[in-house]
Amino acid sequence: MSSVRRFASDADGGYRWDTVELLRYKEEGSAPFKDISRQVLFEQPDQAVQLRYFEIASGGYSTLERHQHTHAVLILRGRGSVQIGDEVHALAERDLVTIDPLTWHQFRAASDCPLGFLCLVASARDRPQLPSADERGGLDKGGAGTGV
Amino acid sequence: MSSVRRFASDADGGYRWDTVELLRYKEEGSAPFKDISRQVLFEQPDQAVQLRYFEIASGGYSTLERHQHTHAVLILRGRGSVQIGDEVHALAERDLVTIDPLTWHQFRAASDCPLGFLCLVASARDRPQLPSADERGGLDKGGAGTGV
Repeated sequence: MSSVRRFASDADGGYRWDTVELLRYKEEGSAPFKDISRQVLFEQPDQAVQLRYFEIASGGYSTLERHQHTHAVLILRGRGSVQIGDEVHALAERDLVTIDPLTWHQFRAASDCPLGFLCLVASARDRPQLPSADERGGLDKGGAGTGV
Repeated sequence: MSSVRRFASDADGGYRWDTVELLRYKEEGSAPFKDISRQVLFEQPDQAVQLRYFEIASGGYSTLERHQHTHAVLILRGRGSVQIGDEVHALAERDLVTIDPLTWHQFRAASDCPLGFLCLVASARDRPQLPSADERGGLDKGGAGTGV
């Protein structure tokens, strides 16, 4: 249904929207990650894609993973970095990140501020793969949680 | 290809990104509108959808139109309003707007600042319809360009 849903910050300054549920990033214990929330802003058009908002608290990080589906990311809040393959790129607000299929990637918030980003994915998508011990060693670029 | 594309403002303060072309909103004369630019940020995943950035200069407005395809919109910059059917809603940064199929809609920037927004659409979509003279009369909610 057509709608306008208002943006608001919660008591902790986290980004929230009317009627949008705050979700866990993943199930605890399913993969290494730290301090992330997930919100599905849109499932459009015709449920083909989802536009999600992830917020990584300062010092937090996403799972180092890869999958067949692509990510299209726009940084909405804060600062941090992204590891893509064996390269690490600094990120600031409104930067755009494209992650190709089967490319190892990990998002990390700065130590002093959160990293919030929009992520566009296909609604029907494959499950992430985690690196093996050997792959983790080759991918160690000063990231966090890669050795877990 | 995986990439990070940096955000930057141009000399006039307009939002721009590395390698993203600044496009006309529509062909001149094709429909009533005023002071809008368009940039395609992503065509993902598998070219099923486009995520575009529109920037309406202060006092500008989009075409009052409707179409079968849906819009999913996130306000990225400034203030303004959106008319959906016969209702007008004020808009501020990070608000979410959903436009259902065949629903008349028009975005308008405030008189003193631009309105910039992300808009998610299917890459394959139908062409907009313009209101007839009778429909324009019924939809006149203080908007701009509806009488052109």
